[in-house]
Amino acid sequence: MSGEFNREQLESVLKRRFFYAPAFEIYGGVSGLYDYGPPGCALQANIVDVWRKHFILEEDMLEVDCTMLTPHEVLKTSGHVDKFADWMCRDLKTGEIFRADHLVEEVLEARLKGDKEARGEKVEEVEEDDQKKKRKKKVKEIKAVKLEDSVVEEYETILAKIDGYSGPELGDIMVKYNIGNPATGEPLEKPMAFNLMFETAIGPSGQLKGYLRPETAQGQFLNFSKLLDSNNEKMPFASASIGKSFRNEISPRSGLLRVREFLMAEIEHFVDPLDKSHAGFKSVENIKLTFWPKEVQEKGSTETSKITVGEAVRSGMVDNETLGYFLARIYLFLIKIGVNPDRLRFRQHMSNEMAHYAQDCWDAELQTSYGWIECVGCADRSAYDLTVHSARTKEKLCVRETLPEPKVVERLECQIDKKRFGPKFRKDAPKVEQWLFSRTECELEDLAKELDEKLKITVQIPETTIPEVEIPAELLKIEKVTKTEHVREYIPSVIEPSFGIGRILYSIFEHSFWSRPEDSARCVLSLPPLVAPTKVLLVPLSNHETLQPVLQVVKDKLKSKQIPFKVDDSSASIGKRYARNDELGTPFGITIDFESIKDNSVTLRERDSTLQVRGSIESVVEAIVNITYNQVSWKEGTKHLESFESKADE
Amino acid sequence: MSGEFNREQLESVLKRRFFYAPAFEIYGGVSGLYDYGPPGCALQANIVDVWRKHFILEEDMLEVDCTMLTPHEVLKTSGHVDKFADWMCRDLKTGEIFRADHLVEEVLEARLKGDKEARGEKVEEVEEDDQKKKRKKKVKEIKAVKLEDSVVEEYETILAKIDGYSGPELGDIMVKYNIGNPATGEPLEKPMAFNLMFETAIGPSGQLKGYLRPETAQGQFLNFSKLLDSNNEKMPFASASIGKSFRNEISPRSGLLRVREFLMAEIEHFVDPLDKSHAGFKSVENIKLTFWPKEVQEKGSTETSKITVGEAVRSGMVDNETLGYFLARIYLFLIKIGVNPDRLRFRQHMSNEMAHYAQDCWDAELQTSYGWIECVGCADRSAYDLTVHSARTKEKLCVRETLPEPKVVERLECQIDKKRFGPKFRKDAPKVEQWLFSRTECELEDLAKELDEKLKITVQIPETTIPEVEIPAELLKIEKVTKTEHVREYIPSVIEPSFGIGRILYSIFEHSFWSRPEDSARCVLSLPPLVAPTKVLLVPLSNHETLQPVLQVVKDKLKSKQIPFKVDDSSASIGKRYARNDELGTPFGITIDFESIKDNSVTLRERDSTLQVRGSIESVVEAIVNITYNQVSWKEGTKHLESFESKADE
Repeated sequence: MSGEFNREQLESVLKRRFFYAPAFEIYGGVSGLYDYGPPGCALQANIVDVWRKHFILEEDMLEVDCTMLTPHEVLKTSGHVDKFADWMCRDLKTGEIFRADHLVEEVLEARLKGDKEARGEKVEEVEEDDQKKKRKKKVKEIKAVKLEDSVVEEYETILAKIDGYSGPELGDIMVKYNIGNPATGEPLEKPMAFNLMFETAIGPSGQLKGYLRPETAQGQFLNFSKLLDSNNEKMPFASASIGKSFRNEISPRSGLLRVREFLMAEIEHFVDPLDKSHAGFKSVENIKLTFWPKEVQEKGSTETSKITVGEAVRSGMVDNETLGYFLARIYLFLIKIGVNPDRLRFRQHMSNEMAHYAQDCWDAELQTSYGWIECVGCADRSAYDLTVHSARTKEKLCVRETLPEPKVVERLECQIDKKRFGPKFRKDAPKVEQWLFSRTECELEDLAKELDEKLKITVQIPETTIPEVEIPAELLKIEKVTKTEHVREYIPSVIEPSFGIGRILYSIFEHSFWSRPEDSARCVLSLPPLVAPTKVLLVPLSNHETLQPVLQVVKDKLKSKQIPFKVDDSSASIGKRYARNDELGTPFGITIDFESIKDNSVTLRERDSTLQVRGSIESVVEAIVNITYNQVSWKEGTKHLESFESKADE
Repeated sequence: MSGEFNREQLESVLKRRFFYAPAFEIYGGVSGLYDYGPPGCALQANIVDVWRKHFILEEDMLEVDCTMLTPHEVLKTSGHVDKFADWMCRDLKTGEIFRADHLVEEVLEARLKGDKEARGEKVEEVEEDDQKKKRKKKVKEIKAVKLEDSVVEEYETILAKIDGYSGPELGDIMVKYNIGNPATGEPLEKPMAFNLMFETAIGPSGQLKGYLRPETAQGQFLNFSKLLDSNNEKMPFASASIGKSFRNEISPRSGLLRVREFLMAEIEHFVDPLDKSHAGFKSVENIKLTFWPKEVQEKGSTETSKITVGEAVRSGMVDNETLGYFLARIYLFLIKIGVNPDRLRFRQHMSNEMAHYAQDCWDAELQTSYGWIECVGCADRSAYDLTVHSARTKEKLCVRETLPEPKVVERLECQIDKKRFGPKFRKDAPKVEQWLFSRTECELEDLAKELDEKLKITVQIPETTIPEVEIPAELLKIEKVTKTEHVREYIPSVIEPSFGIGRILYSIFEHSFWSRPEDSARCVLSLPPLVAPTKVLLVPLSNHETLQPVLQVVKDKLKSKQIPFKVDDSSASIGKRYARNDELGTPFGITIDFESIKDNSVTLRERDSTLQVRGSIESVVEAIVNITYNQVSWKEGTKHLESFESKADE
């Protein structure tokens, strides 16, 4: 492949061929919403199909399809109502709203560029999307201003850590470095949290508040017990879900990369927290991946290391085998659907980026003209989600495992004086009782100590009528009891590989787009045959009716093998017809000519090389099936066919 | 198949096997929202896959994937903001909300039942869902009250036409027949329109109002020009879309039949309004369908007629060939995925049910224990949607067709005195001008007449600053002009087959569920192999390690043919293991025994008949492929295999 990548040219092809387009375009569009046209829709369906086979079928995962509408209470418990937010700054004068981290990033990048220009250094041109470009045009920053060396260093450190700052921290940076509305230079309001969930009301009374899900994960967690039952109570196991999720982005940008409605494919792998080994690890441990661990990022360095998954797990860089296994499987999937392995890296989340409960988290990032983009996240969410939902609903979301042999254990246990409990606490009695009996071993130790020292315990118990509950020693004993346990009960940990299909799809466009060296206007999308929207273009040499019967034979043959094809019987030259389909990523072309009538032979053309071979209809279709679905190379797949020279591509 | 259908038993199986379950069940659930578990999800995916092949691939339709979030303006134009509503009645005392038509239906049905009891007639038990049952229990209607014969007749007429009443009409019925809150008998508020769309705000300012789409159609209409271009400007053509839609039902009920979030598959077939013939009509015209035309319904009769599609179109009962073609294709699709043809009828919409713009509309209704359920709609929407969006956005959504030869036509045309137009109408001038030039031929005729008679025209023009615009004859001429036209421009009509996947799926459960006569606790879901969630159950006779290598060979063979299978190596008896999978609808079982080690032979069992045959692994897998995917019968597919007698099912 050759020629400099030209995003404008790619976008023009994607638009002209209706891979995707702004939704509601005739109404002026809504930012962050896109429709997929026929080739985009087929490409997306093929990627989803490969995903389903690669993950769900090959690994026997349990697929579920849960609702997008989600009641308030569920997302309150999961933490999304309180924490699923970005920081936004308002310009009170103009009414404009900026996303704080993006604003800091853009302004500092612009200043660094000015500095480089002032120093007479070459400025690397990073391509930008229209919206960002428009905003930059307005930036009042004086161009070509030299900065202090120490300031350059500070800016670079901030940019390397930009994903890790809290709202107040961003506010401080904006004050310290005098970052305001780029168009006017005026200061902005302090960053405020803006919840990214779309809210709606469920039912006619309007009283049940709900949201559109921001991820597909919660539905899988809530169904945990049913899924465990479906899996015959065997652990570990994984569920999976493919469906739309929604985020009300403050300022959608970068085309398909930051949108408000998007297709996700998520896996929740449930595993024993004490044993995160993986039965399939051996099969992937020698695969080499490009890692960018957190320590390196925290130093402000972008240096990556290419080592095997085995080494990464053994050295402790990747927390456990299951996480390592999935990183490798993610890699294999991405390569299969057309990602360039040299433009894929695994970035570990820094400690300040991760949720407090997360054990370890890695993003598969793909390099595009917009920079490195997070396309797949792979997090160890520990037992957080199951624990909070279980606590909130009082439904056990846990695994019960028969111990190989019974175990004698000492446990602290509460004993209460039932007769006196009721009269003392009245309506609150059941709440107090329940609270006592749901304490952990560790909490009971503290309570026992308090009871021993003060002859009473004083605690706050939610949903009781009094602010503090006092339980005297006469009513409560906390003592060690010897027990024989036959069953171990635990809440599993969750390893979650989560795929943003739209982002992956866009990255594949960039990774597979090029133009022919002999004519830069002739563009090609080198999509792997497996995911290409259409596999074969049928090109009858002319519209002469004698060619129709052979054309029909080829069509029937392709249909019987379920190979998606299109016919182009327009009057354009064969070269032109192929050129159009190179833009659509169609990997194969079959030319039907007057020879075909005589001997049933046809010509097969390969998109990237424009090489042609000739053979019987039967053998040509066979070659297409093998190359498309059975991972056979062009050379191997066509070795029984004759090489063929013609001027089709002229 | 035998045994009375028992809905409770079916529901218990569907729940136990996690085909689907109420969403957020551990939080108490939200009515009208369901999650699909692994077998339900696989069944749904298979139905969608068959749909995609049957319609999109076989007919070369253009698939699109449009956003669910839709801005207010689009749905205002389409009419949904004003008209997509059900009628609800509030009980001001209790706060309860009822859907008016459902309420009238339930109360009159209960009274008719009471009448039958009083007359000593046998009362047919129609199964009801829990919610309806609960409500009925509360019904204060005195049981076993005999009604006047004339009243019975009136009730029956109302029930036959229940889908066609407006809100005020329902209100009148409620007053006339004294229908109030069934629990208390108290009167309710008059029916009020309740819009069924979920509303939300798009973007951080909260100022862009949006809705979750109530159908997938609008996205297809808005992309019409791009789609026509993708189809090389050729007409007719169809687009298609598969995705979720949303309706905020007043009182969701009947399980999967009336839900708030559901999967739809919709086709928009764009066709010349002057020529609604269909190239494929010949291939389906001899298919016999069961029709229930509107005239018969309007008489209050439920009599249907079984005639060919050809006859139906020729007699004018079905409006045109394209509509007839799709009714037949819908029939073929439904039969393929397991609908019982005897429980399928096509009901024509009555004139008062149809939107004013609709030309003709037929529903494919499936019979279930809840009655006849609309599962597919097939409407001729005429050019309505494209016309209104085009008028609103000023974007042409039309087809331009070069005429075979130029045509000389007379057309009325407006000529205005530009110089005096501006000063007279000032700011309104462009609006007035645009209004004049966008009149139809027919409207111009009226205006010309008015101008001629009164020497001025007086009209209301939207968005002008004055309520009435007066245009004097000095400023305006409307005259016949002779023109040579080379191109015909028209807005196409749309024929829309629209599938509710969840309703179809539930109906298939009912149509395929039965229990074995010898043991009514042994239930079977006779899903067609093509859509069954899992195709094969592998049953090793024992867990002895010598069986493992053969088991692996069978697994590899099935994987290579991409046949979904499960292994059950539990210690349960073979009969038990099969019984469990009969409930899951798994059509085939392969038993691996000690003979298998010697000669590589295995036993193949068929779910419905429990017949068994034996042969080599190769030939058994071959038979499964042919029966599942190549429409071969069990008898034909296994004719080379030996019949085998054993006691597997005991």
